[in-house]
This record gives sequence, structure tokens and C-alpha cells, in this order.
Amino acid sequence: MDMTVIIREANPETDWSTGIWPIWQEVVRAGDTLVFPPDTDESGASEYWLLPAPARVFVAVNETDGTIVGSSLVKANQPGLGGHVANAGFIVAAVASGHGVGRALAEHAIEWARQANFSAMQFNFVVSTNTRAIALWKDLGFSIVGTIPQAFQHQGLGGKVDVFVMHRFL
Amino acid sequence: MDMTVIIREANPETDWSTGIWPIWQEVVRAGDTLVFPPDTDESGASEYWLLPAPARVFVAVNETDGTIVGSSLVKANQPGLGGHVANAGFIVAAVASGHGVGRALAEHAIEWARQANFSAMQFNFVVSTNTRAIALWKDLGFSIVGTIPQAFQHQGLGGKVDVFVMHRFL
Repeated sequence: MDMTVIIREANPETDWSTGIWPIWQEVVRAGDTLVFPPDTDESGASEYWLLPAPARVFVAVNETDGTIVGSSLVKANQPGLGGHVANAGFIVAAVASGHGVGRALAEHAIEWARQANFSAMQFNFVVSTNTRAIALWKDLGFSIVGTIPQAFQHQGLGGKVDVFVMHRFL
Repeated sequence: MDMTVIIREANPETDWSTGIWPIWQEVVRAGDTLVFPPDTDESGASEYWLLPAPARVFVAVNETDGTIVGSSLVKANQPGLGGHVANAGFIVAAVASGHGVGRALAEHAIEWARQANFSAMQFNFVVSTNTRAIALWKDLGFSIVGTIPQAFQHQGLGGKVDVFVMHRFL
């Protein structure tokens, strides 16, 4: 059953240490979906995730108990002459996995980017073994537009796997 | 005829203002190959190009008169679990165009990345209309592994064109 979440802009002061960071650490430590170093500490993680405006960080809050269960980072994928293409990243707490939180965050990010006048969204680094995410992105209108061979050192599989570039117009 | 160049690490103090920056500005202002905002000022340009270590900036120096005629920026394309793939960017002065400077810089970057234990090199943003660069990258062993539709606002053509992702193992 889907978890009902409210998605709102993150407050770095109050949402990071006990909200976003534990989820970020859990996802990154696993080393099977995100590129960041698995041993990144809290300060390093905040430099990767809490990017200054015009980037935006959002949180998904479980409506029932008010806990943060996921986060998104939405920004321009390139500066200047590539600045019309958005980029986004997502993390979801393991405890909330399979309850539609990733989909809700992604739908929100797409809508936010559309309203911010981006004309497309691009994911640069979708690990090819992350089949659930890939199925979700495809369901949300993304297609694979590139394959980077052996670009990810998968910790669970203990070897290099391909990475997809995915894209959709908005 | 090829120009004989010496390629060495850049010294930000002495090589930037009268060496790299005028070339960077010339290339970026044209708005037909690089993604940076065409009106980027000198300070903004240095933030894009003079990245701190472990990134490296090199210059190509005309052996005949000692002038800087091009520059490369070589770095990891991703942190952490994608850090084994290098990335590089290149600028060449219009006055030196067609004299093998880009090829010399690229061959040097490939060799440097190989010695630094990178296992591949990836270009994220090769403008599809930049046919001379694409021919050079292919000649140097790169292949097109992705196509991002309409990802570059081409200033000369006045519209959006596709962008290629190119890759080679080292």
C-alpha cells in the first residue's frame, strides 16, 4: 500500500541531521545505486546533497507520523547553454521502500522542473542493475539514451557494471 | 602543418589572465562547442576551469614563441564508485586551430589519465554539430555511447541540437 507523503522544500537546519542524512547514509553505504563514496561522513554528504540555490532539495514526509522518509535534489544538469535540462537525484529510506515514495518524489520533481521552465530532465548515472528504479523511470516517461560501460563499481556484486543515461522531455 | 607544442601543468598565477582566459573566452563566447554561459566573466571562468586538485589543468605552449595556444582540464567524471572514469575538456586558440593542438592535448590527457590509474575516459557533452572534434575523438578511440536530444542551445545555429556522450577505455 502506498504511504501518503507530503513533499516540501527541505530546511537544512532542521531536516538534515535526523531526517535526510540517516537515509542518505543508508542508501550510499549499500553501494549499489548511488555513486557517492560509501564511507562519506555527514559533513561530506551535506556538501553533495544540500546544494545552494538555484538547486532545490525536497523531503517526503510521512503524513501519519511526520518522519522524513525520502529526499530529492533537483538542479540544472549543466550551466549556460545546457541549462534548460534539469537533473534530479532521489533517496528513500529502506523502511519506506516499495510504498510509492520514490514515485511521489519523482513526479514532484518533474512537475517542479516543468514549472521552473526546464524543457527536459536527464539522469546521468542510473546503475544498470537497479532494475526497480529503471522500471519506475520508464513508467514516468524516461528512456535510456546512453549506456556507459562498466562505469559503476557495484559494492554488492563486487565488480563494475554499466550505467544508463536516461532522459525525458517535460 | 602541425604546431610543435610543449604540454605542461598550468600555473594559475602566471598562465591564466594572459594565457588560458583569452582562449577560454574566445571559445565560450562563440557558443557553438562548450556549454558555459557565453558571457561568463574572467572570475567565473576561473571557477569553471581552474578546479583544485585532484583535477589537473594543463597548457599547450607553442615551442616557437612560448605563447599558450590551448588548455585541458582533466578530472574524475564522478566521485566515489564512479571515480575510475576520467573526464576531460579542451580549448584551443582560433589562431592555432587546425595545427594538431587539440590532438596533442587529448593524447596527453589520455596518457595522463592512464598513468593516474583511470580505467576509462568519458566526455559528457560533445555538441553533435562539432564534427571536427567528433572526428578527432573517434580517431583517438572514443565512440558515441549516448545521444541527449536537444541538450545544447547552439548560438551560431540559433536552436537546440543534440549532444553526444563519448567514451573509451584506457
